[in-house]
Amino acid sequence: MQFHQPQKEQSLAMLKELIEQNREFDIIDLFSKLHHADVAGLIDNLEEQEKRRLFALLDVEMASDVILELSDHSREQILSDISDERLADMVEEMDTDDAADFVADLPKDQAKAVLEDIHPDDSEDIRELLEYDEDTAGGIMQSELIAVPQKATINDALHAVVEASQEIDRTYNVYVVDEKNRLLGAVPLQNLITSKRHDPIMGAIDTSLPSVNPEMDQEEVARIFRKYDLVSVPVVDREGHLIGRITVDDIVDVFEEESSEDLYRIAGLDEDDHVFNSPWESIKKRLPWLYINLLTAFVSVFVIGFFEDTLKTMVTLALFMPVVAGLGGNAGGQTLALIVRGLALGEITMHNARRALLRQILVGIANGAAVGVVVGFIAYLLKGSSLLGIVLGLAMIINVFVGTLMGTLVPLALKILKLDPALGSNIFITAFTDAFGFLSFLGLATIFLKMLA
Amino acid sequence: MQFHQPQKEQSLAMLKELIEQNREFDIIDLFSKLHHADVAGLIDNLEEQEKRRLFALLDVEMASDVILELSDHSREQILSDISDERLADMVEEMDTDDAADFVADLPKDQAKAVLEDIHPDDSEDIRELLEYDEDTAGGIMQSELIAVPQKATINDALHAVVEASQEIDRTYNVYVVDEKNRLLGAVPLQNLITSKRHDPIMGAIDTSLPSVNPEMDQEEVARIFRKYDLVSVPVVDREGHLIGRITVDDIVDVFEEESSEDLYRIAGLDEDDHVFNSPWESIKKRLPWLYINLLTAFVSVFVIGFFEDTLKTMVTLALFMPVVAGLGGNAGGQTLALIVRGLALGEITMHNARRALLRQILVGIANGAAVGVVVGFIAYLLKGSSLLGIVLGLAMIINVFVGTLMGTLVPLALKILKLDPALGSNIFITAFTDAFGFLSFLGLATIFLKMLA
Repeated sequence: MQFHQPQKEQSLAMLKELIEQNREFDIIDLFSKLHHADVAGLIDNLEEQEKRRLFALLDVEMASDVILELSDHSREQILSDISDERLADMVEEMDTDDAADFVADLPKDQAKAVLEDIHPDDSEDIRELLEYDEDTAGGIMQSELIAVPQKATINDALHAVVEASQEIDRTYNVYVVDEKNRLLGAVPLQNLITSKRHDPIMGAIDTSLPSVNPEMDQEEVARIFRKYDLVSVPVVDREGHLIGRITVDDIVDVFEEESSEDLYRIAGLDEDDHVFNSPWESIKKRLPWLYINLLTAFVSVFVIGFFEDTLKTMVTLALFMPVVAGLGGNAGGQTLALIVRGLALGEITMHNARRALLRQILVGIANGAAVGVVVGFIAYLLKGSSLLGIVLGLAMIINVFVGTLMGTLVPLALKILKLDPALGSNIFITAFTDAFGFLSFLGLATIFLKMLA
Repeated sequence: MQFHQPQKEQSLAMLKELIEQNREFDIIDLFSKLHHADVAGLIDNLEEQEKRRLFALLDVEMASDVILELSDHSREQILSDISDERLADMVEEMDTDDAADFVADLPKDQAKAVLEDIHPDDSEDIRELLEYDEDTAGGIMQSELIAVPQKATINDALHAVVEASQEIDRTYNVYVVDEKNRLLGAVPLQNLITSKRHDPIMGAIDTSLPSVNPEMDQEEVARIFRKYDLVSVPVVDREGHLIGRITVDDIVDVFEEESSEDLYRIAGLDEDDHVFNSPWESIKKRLPWLYINLLTAFVSVFVIGFFEDTLKTMVTLALFMPVVAGLGGNAGGQTLALIVRGLALGEITMHNARRALLRQILVGIANGAAVGVVVGFIAYLLKGSSLLGIVLGLAMIINVFVGTLMGTLVPLALKILKLDPALGSNIFITAFTDAFGFLSFLGLATIFLKMLA
């Protein structure tokens, strides 16, 4: 029962041996002892032919669990080989939220065939869920839930749990609704067990817990789970009718998704990019950002071009250009990470954004001065030019300040424009700090040189 | 019951009015209707004096819930004003995992006083939990759990739930142990309800679910929750004795923490940095990274310095230096984000790292070529120098490739050294792509110029 990495390696070795010896019954036996996520992990590690052969050995229930856990790559390989009937049987076994996501990812023909083959009730549920945007509460909710009327007793609720247990797992709460199916509150299973059987359900109800609307962004839903320490949340429409629920296992996936997204977007990566994507896909996904980067880099070319004469006069300036640009960029990157994260966690709102900006400006000025003085002094020591030292120090102060300012303003501006604050931000920040760094450094040098001439 | 942002604003306005009119009973009444996380949110928005006054109004149970949800800043303000006795009462109300975290954050004197004041059993539990590293399973587990012996019936387990309900909430499973307290398996509450009362507990047990050791890294624990869709996991020592459990609400916090950490570390930020830290703290935390950055930036200064003569001959080269450096840096940053994330999610292991590296190299060469050709051509058009175009194009191909290579190798190397793969990585990547970009660009230019001369 314990979780041991070595055990997994062993299972894989054992499985490969069983495959070689064609011992299919033993394979089925091995799988039956494992969690479906582990079975999926094993299948992911096989060759295409073996994947298909072993997947075909699974009964429908196991197959429906396993296919949801397979890597996208394995799933595609197996799906190309599977009959529409078996696919429909598998989808019928799935929870509606998983079924909707699964059907949404199928090729159109297969999706259509499956929706026609399964029970009309299930098909209806899935079609409804498919209507919602996949990044919203509606997109991650499931229709399976247990609800009892407000006149029910604890005993009625317990019976409802027993009756539903074939169809529904992950039951943590029984919901209570009025005669029009409007949500009144939830009763955790623990409370059902500890209450007296003939007491009215309304006595055990918890009304302090939140519900969400299907249109709510999944990131906001995740924030509510975190704030209220929830394991599930009911979803209600505008009139308060109970239409579904979201369980915490789906929210854990949202957290992963959203935090990958921030990291990726800051770096200028497509959120679907993946280490083991085909190189061609990765190239297609990253190249557009590199071209955008190229465009912004040419701003710097023009800024420096403007000072070509100054550079001719004092070519040593070119040595220190990257120092000004790089430190501004990194100071900006630090602030950017902080602000993007603060926005994602809901710590920064439009109300306190001004306070955040003022603090970051203070930090920017102080850090700029701290770095600028050191850099200026080092440059003076290296090259013996006090002009270089002063100009470099000043430019550094300006550019670390600009980087910090931009690191705050860019994500806030994107947020106000209702865009993702992390969207390719690092590329824009560094473009700005590069151009502004060169402008201040070479601009100051030009002025000082003219003053001395 | 619904979650409405405007309602929160209203509550705050109402609260401020009640405070002004000294209507303390109405304040208590308002708080009693709210979730403790919302009460904490309201208190966070008040002035220091009001925070203390309102916090004093809360009964011990509410106070212990609320203080755990307050911002660090509010908590410090309130703690400075609270008696050791009240503090001890509050800690006794907390779950052991929260209590241990809370005590660990207290000033030493207060922590000692609290541990002496509370019930010796609780104090013992908390002291034991404090032994574990805060980033491990032991650091986030709680001692509160329900366990029954293997000879128990379903009915016994139901009684155990009822008996424990005063002390323990968030019960999702009843654990089954042998006579030596070694874990045999878990029974979800749903199964307790659906089983026959006089059946043996062992008939309803689920043994396919994992347990974890207290030394396991919390990130690894989070990965297990995600893989197996868990709401709680039992913690067992090396001999298999059940010593605690971890619930999903704590894992949600781990996800937040760990994903902030990656983002921060890549950017060269201390993980404790925060938008609303005092500027002085932020300065202290960011400055060391900027100085490290400065150190690495001077590598570029020396590289460029090496080619000062080439620059004097052809000062136009200086215009395009940032293009080579910048695009290499961004290609590196893209790959870095991908690899760091892949490592964090456990998708990249030491077994498939070589495959990941090869794919990224392919992507690097292709993207480098795609960008290099365009850049070279643009530079030729702008400046009419085919030498510049060729040198720039070639340098770009080399540097985008180098960036991609480093973006893969740096996090993998840090991982092999058992360091955090994200640790300040962006600073090192850009240092490398800067220096290497200048080296290849100016180096090639020098060679070509000599060939032509």
